[in-house]
Amino acid sequence: MAGNTFGQAFRITTAGESHGPGNVVIIDGVPPGISLTVEDLLGDLNRRRPGQSHITTQRDEPDLPEILSGVFEGRTTGTSLAILIRNTDQRSKDYGDIKDLYRPGHADFTFDEKYGFRDYRGGGRSSARETTARVAAGVVAKKLIDQAFGGRVLGYVTQVGEIKASIQEPETLTLDQIEKRPDGSPNIIRCPDIAAADRMIARIEEVRKAGDSIGGVAEIVAVNVPAGLGEPVFDKIKADLAKALFSLPAVLGVEYGIGFGCATMKGSEHNDIFTTGRRPGGPDLLGTQAGIITKTNRHGGMLGGISTGMPILLRAAVKPTSSLPIEQETVNRDGQTTTIRTKGRHDPCLLPRFIPMAEAMVAIVIADHWLRWQGQRHALDSE
Amino acid sequence: MAGNTFGQAFRITTAGESHGPGNVVIIDGVPPGISLTVEDLLGDLNRRRPGQSHITTQRDEPDLPEILSGVFEGRTTGTSLAILIRNTDQRSKDYGDIKDLYRPGHADFTFDEKYGFRDYRGGGRSSARETTARVAAGVVAKKLIDQAFGGRVLGYVTQVGEIKASIQEPETLTLDQIEKRPDGSPNIIRCPDIAAADRMIARIEEVRKAGDSIGGVAEIVAVNVPAGLGEPVFDKIKADLAKALFSLPAVLGVEYGIGFGCATMKGSEHNDIFTTGRRPGGPDLLGTQAGIITKTNRHGGMLGGISTGMPILLRAAVKPTSSLPIEQETVNRDGQTTTIRTKGRHDPCLLPRFIPMAEAMVAIVIADHWLRWQGQRHALDSE
Amino acid sequence: MAGNTFGQAFRITTAGESHGPGNVVIIDGVPPGISLTVEDLLGDLNRRRPGQSHITTQRDEPDLPEILSGVFEGRTTGTSLAILIRNTDQRSKDYGDIKDLYRPGHADFTFDEKYGFRDYRGGGRSSARETTARVAAGVVAKKLIDQAFGGRVLGYVTQVGEIKASIQEPETLTLDQIEKRPDGSPNIIRCPDIAAADRMIARIEEVRKAGDSIGGVAEIVAVNVPAGLGEPVFDKIKADLAKALFSLPAVLGVEYGIGFGCATMKGSEHNDIFTTGRRPGGPDLLGTQAGIITKTNRHGGMLGGISTGMPILLRAAVKPTSSLPIEQETVNRDGQTTTIRTKGRHDPCLLPRFIPMAEAMVAIVIADHWLRWQGQRHALDSE
Amino acid sequence: MAGNTFGQAFRITTAGESHGPGNVVIIDGVPPGISLTVEDLLGDLNRRRPGQSHITTQRDEPDLPEILSGVFEGRTTGTSLAILIRNTDQRSKDYGDIKDLYRPGHADFTFDEKYGFRDYRGGGRSSARETTARVAAGVVAKKLIDQAFGGRVLGYVTQVGEIKASIQEPETLTLDQIEKRPDGSPNIIRCPDIAAADRMIARIEEVRKAGDSIGGVAEIVAVNVPAGLGEPVFDKIKADLAKALFSLPAVLGVEYGIGFGCATMKGSEHNDIFTTGRRPGGPDLLGTQAGIITKTNRHGGMLGGISTGMPILLRAAVKPTSSLPIEQETVNRDGQTTTIRTKGRHDPCLLPRFIPMAEAMVAIVIADHWLRWQGQRHALDSE
Repeated sequence: MAGNTFGQAFRITTAGESHGPGNVVIIDGVPPGISLTVEDLLGDLNRRRPGQSHITTQRDEPDLPEILSGVFEGRTTGTSLAILIRNTDQRSKDYGDIKDLYRPGHADFTFDEKYGFRDYRGGGRSSARETTARVAAGVVAKKLIDQAFGGRVLGYVTQVGEIKASIQEPETLTLDQIEKRPDGSPNIIRCPDIAAADRMIARIEEVRKAGDSIGGVAEIVAVNVPAGLGEPVFDKIKADLAKALFSLPAVLGVEYGIGFGCATMKGSEHNDIFTTGRRPGGPDLLGTQAGIITKTNRHGGMLGGISTGMPILLRAAVKPTSSLPIEQETVNRDGQTTTIRTKGRHDPCLLPRFIPMAEAMVAIVIADHWLRWQGQRHALDSE
Repeated sequence: MAGNTFGQAFRITTAGESHGPGNVVIIDGVPPGISLTVEDLLGDLNRRRPGQSHITTQRDEPDLPEILSGVFEGRTTGTSLAILIRNTDQRSKDYGDIKDLYRPGHADFTFDEKYGFRDYRGGGRSSARETTARVAAGVVAKKLIDQAFGGRVLGYVTQVGEIKASIQEPETLTLDQIEKRPDGSPNIIRCPDIAAADRMIARIEEVRKAGDSIGGVAEIVAVNVPAGLGEPVFDKIKADLAKALFSLPAVLGVEYGIGFGCATMKGSEHNDIFTTGRRPGGPDLLGTQAGIITKTNRHGGMLGGISTGMPILLRAAVKPTSSLPIEQETVNRDGQTTTIRTKGRHDPCLLPRFIPMAEAMVAIVIADHWLRWQGQRHALDSE
Repeated sequence: MAGNTFGQAFRITTAGESHGPGNVVIIDGVPPGISLTVEDLLGDLNRRRPGQSHITTQRDEPDLPEILSGVFEGRTTGTSLAILIRNTDQRSKDYGDIKDLYRPGHADFTFDEKYGFRDYRGGGRSSARETTARVAAGVVAKKLIDQAFGGRVLGYVTQVGEIKASIQEPETLTLDQIEKRPDGSPNIIRCPDIAAADRMIARIEEVRKAGDSIGGVAEIVAVNVPAGLGEPVFDKIKADLAKALFSLPAVLGVEYGIGFGCATMKGSEHNDIFTTGRRPGGPDLLGTQAGIITKTNRHGGMLGGISTGMPILLRAAVKPTSSLPIEQETVNRDGQTTTIRTKGRHDPCLLPRFIPMAEAMVAIVIADHWLRWQGQRHALDSE
Repeated sequence: MAGNTFGQAFRITTAGESHGPGNVVIIDGVPPGISLTVEDLLGDLNRRRPGQSHITTQRDEPDLPEILSGVFEGRTTGTSLAILIRNTDQRSKDYGDIKDLYRPGHADFTFDEKYGFRDYRGGGRSSARETTARVAAGVVAKKLIDQAFGGRVLGYVTQVGEIKASIQEPETLTLDQIEKRPDGSPNIIRCPDIAAADRMIARIEEVRKAGDSIGGVAEIVAVNVPAGLGEPVFDKIKADLAKALFSLPAVLGVEYGIGFGCATMKGSEHNDIFTTGRRPGGPDLLGTQAGIITKTNRHGGMLGGISTGMPILLRAAVKPTSSLPIEQETVNRDGQTTTIRTKGRHDPCLLPRFIPMAEAMVAIVIADHWLRWQGQRHALDSE
């Protein structure tokens, strides 16, 4: 059984390769009546698109989506919604020479092992180009959770190489604080700690010039998510969020709340104490009702695999780009040793463009679990 | 949609609470012809069971499984296989006083938010008691992957609090090296670095005496897994393994290969170079054929979400036990502040009993992906 | 991928063989707060049980269910609910002689072809004994749809051999009209047309004495089902209902509304005209609100795969019992010609016991689609 | 949970409306290495397309498919395969006047009840236009089962109104015998009994001239399907085939083998006797090996929900077209009585164009079950 479908009640199915005609997503389960336009989709697609700054790949692809179905007179109909994003700047010629080589860190070898052969142009289906479809679906998910309960998902870069940002109260961040610098110019690294952002950019420039790449960490915060989302015992929301992030290319680790930091803690230090009060969140948020909350949020907004109403806080470790313009040793399909120097255009650091991908996946999981829960929750409502 | 089913081709569905009649698992998709007895199941169930040593909970539960279906004359039939493990030592009286309280770090609050009320006895469905069903299913998965390709899954403790073990060549470890000390006595912490194990046990004793608990890290290694397992783009094997581990109670972080360590690496340092040779593994392993391998294993046996044939290496961060015999502040259902002192019997450190649970989940994912792949792979075989 | 799970939001997974320890069902997605007792389950289990009259098999099995999980203090908890029904009167010795023979009309041959071997005792997993698990789950589904919207599902026999009953206004039938004769004694054939019922019973007696069996038709009516259930384009409610009924043993045909009768109709004769009025149904029904209805119900309560609010009317053709006490020609595993005379105890006509099985499956589909719809429908409700 | 996905291992997901930009299908699970071109798709798309003869709708739509992904250098890659069929001849103006009316026999009312509003242009998502996506996927399924085991699926019309065809040995039919008359001209009704075909066509002409429509019955035969397909107890192949056919528009009944005819039979008359011999099928078929077969095929190629290797024989009852150019009474959204006269171009009889849709769905189920089975079947193959 193949794996190109994600989610159950808000369910996306994708297809598309890096250098084929395009990428398509079918979203099933979208509630009727949500306004949706091509312009809505462009926001995050532009945040994801290549060529957006000098620290991303120069492959320049406008990513203009077409809504094929599921929207009528500007609103979702409740039936399956399809979005097509054509590939325009394909340059297949860049890739012909890797047809029989296995690029280190890439899926060339494993695709050959699995399928017997592969669309080698730009990584084919294993290219991060497939995430355009996810990002488009994420826009719909974001609109849904915003409209349903004022939910909001934001991501930002917290680490590039050794450089770590200091982010206080992530639940109060706004999109502008991530996307823009204080002077209104683009924050091309998407780190709201501007001092750290500057050092991160410098570090990326440095590795880029050296023909190298660098890893990092992204953090994603979901605010205003109601308590009650998540389906024990297997579809805990922490489990589905982790799967969502790990399903993205280059992710080697995921943690939530205190994460791996829990290993050195005692229970008396770790437990978040229940109290009453208003849920943390910026002053503009709808969901900051008073109720039972926790004094601290080491639990990252999830207990027993169910959301607590506190901010959901996740971190993902993203490996350095595998494609390098410097020579690397490898083997060809026959196992013969050779070398490879990747000629395509690649990001020296994946983090800036990873942010909208990660947000999309987190929003999709939250939308899915919201819908999943609503069925059981409203089951006995009188009609 | 509720979430008590896991896997697609090797699919488990579980039910059961801590203090109800018992826990049951239905395993669907088991190939016909695998020998299976109650004795087979007892091995891992005993590794998971409470009361196994002075550093685990003293709740003493024999966990005797009954095979209800799917096995005929000692072999699996290919039809759905059900296993029931009755609860025997229930002592519901221990839990009556927490009926209206929310234990810090537990799912009491979130279950009430989700379902409106809960089976409060011992955590009900949110108790780690449900993992008996997973462990039983894991035994079947382990037999399947062993019989199909000599696959083996082993877990061990690598960290308790600040104490870290040093494990060289995890792919060569045997069950005995984890379960036993050099003198043959039980290695109750399941850490094969004996010096570290001793310090871990001492640390656990210390926190237990203080009425506290401690976190840690477990590592799971799967050896002899063929290249080709995993279903891009969403059901990457790294994604399903992460979900599997995050679905277990108390897991706050998962990483594979170099994990979060990738954040500070450059691409040229991180990429594992392809070469040819024999797959790493102990001398007793069936699958150590020669072929294309990588010189190093920072990628943890998975590239592009598909197994490479190299050892699959995962780590999970496990939080300190939330139930504490010391007084903690909390609120009741009405939001009134009060205190709680958990009287039940609890593990001061979850790690030793976590190991068989984690192994089971990893084995189930590998079995599931093996079966999933076989369908597509053998689709065009002449009949 | 094996197929022992049915439904998505109200999802049942079953296991169990005819002569193993028992049959078990796990029901996932049950809303919290529904009262459920063993007594509730006994009603339909007794309608399904063998030995209930002289026209059913004499195998006498009390079918006492045990609720293993998912119910606390008499109410469903919202977590997975497991029910175990042990096999008591197993008499495996009756079946030893068919180990290597293929009974005509049975699954012996196909199970061997599929799995390589089979639990031959009483048909093993292919025995209609597995429907005990479905019937138990059906009770929960019936309670759910009754509580949610006053929905009711009833089945009855409309044909045995050449004898056809005349049922007017099936939507007004009550359980008592089906289960009892006017004098209060059991209506053992479950046909509310008493004159036809008497002839059906006589016909069954006749074939039984001749060592033969006879087929028939059952009709199932679901009343008070709201308009809006069903998920185009594949999970149309007509499609899922048909699958549900075809998944039962011995069903060779399913139709709804006018069914195969549509083949000879013109569109002008066939279309049901929309009008306004009260939905058809007995005076005791909650759902007989005024609104848009159709003047006639040739469409059987479903248009475009979605319920219209009119009674859902289905019919299933049930083949004559394959097991016969008279000698039949067949082959053994090696293809050698031989004869077989089935010694077990069998129903001369499957219809009376088929009724509760069919009701259960229809109720499960309606409960499932209700829950499935509620998620999308209440997605944008303010929290 | 919405319902636009069908199948598990061979899984299709569709989107698209009658008058939107187009219809799209994503097929997941296709084995790598199957040759596929746009020309392959055109065959069945042309059999399904409107305007193909004077007895079908005159809406003239060329249905030119575009393969968006999953095919590289003419062969399937094993990754998700997307096909887009744009709508060209949309004429939305024909439908504006039915915006607030409920056409008898159509899904207008139920879509409004379910979703609150609908894309009313040509039925939107409820239009049979969505079956283009199914037919395209069916071509891939047909290629798969042909390549894997020489399987073949063919459908034909057996009844229009009162006129019934006489088809002997349906398992020997060829596509040419269905698509062409003896003189090589198109058999526009797709009934291989030419005498009956002529009368059917005359009957359709008659009702068309009267502004009416007529129902009928289609038969589908699948030959050379190996024994062993089908997954008890719920995903019996008969159950999934029935769901597949009932998921098509206008289907009111499905039966297999002797079907509803079983009701009047005795067991001794009904049981098919096992024997040995060659499987029935034309001389050109690969799969006509000798082995255990049945002397007769009242069981329609399936026992216990698993294929027997005998021809799978299904029939579907198709209602008369609901859209009529004559005046019909109905209500509008407010329940006010009015009349409607459908101006669009419609088929006076759905049967000729139903054939490729039904074949596609049957082929998809067989492909899906083949893949599903292969996983379990080859699970223990040494690697």
